[in-house]
Amino acid sequence: MEKLAVLGCGVVGSGVVELFEKNKNLIEKRCGKTLEMGYILDLRDFPDKPYANKLVKNIEIILNDPEVTVVAECMGGVEPAFTFVKSCLEHGKSVATSNKELVASKGDILLQTAKENHCNFFFEASVGGAIPIIRPLHKCLIANEFSAIAGILNGTTNFILNKMITADMDFATALALAQEKGYAEKDPTADVEGHDACRKICILSSLAFGKHVYPESVYTKGIREVELKDTKLCEKLGYAIKLIARVQMLDNHKILPTVMPMAVENDNLLSDVNGVYNAVMVRGDGIGKAMFYGRGAGKFPTASAVLGDMIEEVQLSDTIPAQTWENVGNTDFIEDVSKFTAKYYFRTTSADVNLLSEVFGEIASQTISTDEEELVFVTEHALNRMELETAVKTLAQKGVQVLAQYPILVA
Amino acid sequence: MEKLAVLGCGVVGSGVVELFEKNKNLIEKRCGKTLEMGYILDLRDFPDKPYANKLVKNIEIILNDPEVTVVAECMGGVEPAFTFVKSCLEHGKSVATSNKELVASKGDILLQTAKENHCNFFFEASVGGAIPIIRPLHKCLIANEFSAIAGILNGTTNFILNKMITADMDFATALALAQEKGYAEKDPTADVEGHDACRKICILSSLAFGKHVYPESVYTKGIREVELKDTKLCEKLGYAIKLIARVQMLDNHKILPTVMPMAVENDNLLSDVNGVYNAVMVRGDGIGKAMFYGRGAGKFPTASAVLGDMIEEVQLSDTIPAQTWENVGNTDFIEDVSKFTAKYYFRTTSADVNLLSEVFGEIASQTISTDEEELVFVTEHALNRMELETAVKTLAQKGVQVLAQYPILVA
Repeated sequence: MEKLAVLGCGVVGSGVVELFEKNKNLIEKRCGKTLEMGYILDLRDFPDKPYANKLVKNIEIILNDPEVTVVAECMGGVEPAFTFVKSCLEHGKSVATSNKELVASKGDILLQTAKENHCNFFFEASVGGAIPIIRPLHKCLIANEFSAIAGILNGTTNFILNKMITADMDFATALALAQEKGYAEKDPTADVEGHDACRKICILSSLAFGKHVYPESVYTKGIREVELKDTKLCEKLGYAIKLIARVQMLDNHKILPTVMPMAVENDNLLSDVNGVYNAVMVRGDGIGKAMFYGRGAGKFPTASAVLGDMIEEVQLSDTIPAQTWENVGNTDFIEDVSKFTAKYYFRTTSADVNLLSEVFGEIASQTISTDEEELVFVTEHALNRMELETAVKTLAQKGVQVLAQYPILVA
Repeated sequence: MEKLAVLGCGVVGSGVVELFEKNKNLIEKRCGKTLEMGYILDLRDFPDKPYANKLVKNIEIILNDPEVTVVAECMGGVEPAFTFVKSCLEHGKSVATSNKELVASKGDILLQTAKENHCNFFFEASVGGAIPIIRPLHKCLIANEFSAIAGILNGTTNFILNKMITADMDFATALALAQEKGYAEKDPTADVEGHDACRKICILSSLAFGKHVYPESVYTKGIREVELKDTKLCEKLGYAIKLIARVQMLDNHKILPTVMPMAVENDNLLSDVNGVYNAVMVRGDGIGKAMFYGRGAGKFPTASAVLGDMIEEVQLSDTIPAQTWENVGNTDFIEDVSKFTAKYYFRTTSADVNLLSEVFGEIASQTISTDEEELVFVTEHALNRMELETAVKTLAQKGVQVLAQYPILVA
């Protein structure tokens, strides 16, 4: 018999307990083990819940029960989650977490602690909610050298951008609707400014390339400045504006992780990922490209991922080396965003195609002139950040303003 | 040091060897083991290949080398693959295969043999080529009760249907193009008649529901009768005709596996899976729905999946119980196709909406009348097979012929 414990009885934690109890027989049959939910740690009482008798308020009870072999951390935030998780690992108890902030900021330390104690620190639920992505990356695709990962990793911003495109709402109205529906928090900063997506691309980058990428190393731009007008005009040109979290391996073997709104071509499946769904596109030298799609958040989807981790941890007798990375003590392996290169969607105050072609080399044949005598177009060639800045300055000198610019996703 | 062996040096087998050698350092670092490609079994000689010195013609050499712990079977077909794989497992050597015919027809026996010998029989590459789907199903989603799986599991038929829709080719022309491009074989029966997709849905059904589903138990209809006209008319109504391999869990807890061309609504991501790509949609009570997308075949994509299996097998000391199923000795758990229920797309020789509404209860508001005075429409209500037959008969009595019918996919 294996005893499990859950830290935090909020949305995800209670989901883990409930989904486990619902499918206990099925799970036990599949994994060939007898399992029991031993403890749920929370400072609150839940007297009406069927699992009320399993609630404890002191982490020591879990740490000191040698029968508990696997613990789920569903508290969120860095502290006290970090201290609790580290203690569990030091006691040889494997941990599964849904806490992306914890993994992005402390993953290297916790993975090292797990290794030293011959147990595991898993985090399938921390990226893409229910979507299997962590295990596919380090197990199924272990024979691949990765060249790029690009994803829609934040459901809130995807819902907002989607409403702008399909329901003609401006950003503020769409955000208010997301808040009303419970998809966005009262303080939507972490989602809207891209911090949440940033943590997730840090985790995917660290796993794919083996070195811890901290959020501070990632160029991150949110969606607050996205105008309704551009979502519509972009659509007319055959693109959807999406908040894309992405990491590329460059020719110099450095990686470039970024989070920013990008224009995604309609024939790219990521352009069809709508509402609160998430998706991750992975490129590797063996697979070519593959995509993973599903619910990025929610009680049972996230619980499903946490339980998948817990049940594998129950069966493992030692640390899985491929599901880990190191802290290399520097950021030399990360390229500066100045090396970021892409074709661009532009909206400018001039409709003078000749002038614009002169500045951007060549612009794509399809352009749109708006009622306000603005011109919308996509460049034919990729620009790096310096070329971009130079072009914007040159236009400014000629009295032409760039009103909006979005890099085109290549994925 | 772990010694590997590959059976069959065809497209996939040589891909396994080449991708392994290319990324050997990366793979070893990730999995923490030293690995060596020991033998490649083939009756042919390949004197110009860098791995020529590893070729052997006798399986006994591999079976009798105790250093070989993991074997890839990339020969295809049931024999001698079955005999060789069974022998490897009996010698305690784990096997990874890309051979869907072998898994669909002999999976139960080989999984049992692996279990008895404390090793593993893995087959990630047998469904969806490079797409991680087997491991996500039994590991990441282990806490889910599955309600449905629906996929585009055959790239050849998807390429043909896609060409019919986008390039106005009829079936024969599109098939000829697929053959020219090497996507379809000279004898395209296995693909075009749905046998290949059938084997794959057998494997997914067996894994998801724990009981071996044999190809003979699956209602299988191919795409030979799909007319260009219907692909275009369906598109106008907002659907794409796709060859869908699917299994549903019905209310009576029986499963219903089917392979047939279906009309997929445009807002379903499966409708956007084009060319030779594959995709699998999975529904479970925890995750809601998730989709997996990627290359369904090809040398390195398939090799990537085989290597993922081999490298996990190297690290395992016993059989993984969740990655298995049993032969229950009967088909009582499989529902008859007569219970299949769906809304339908119809094309009929009458444009008399009143008459058709009378027969089908109600038909969707959007209908198309063709130049030939045919009517195309989608029923408002789902019909089971008996209701379908009755409706077709009733129409026949009134002199109206049903020229085409496609069930609408709910996924």
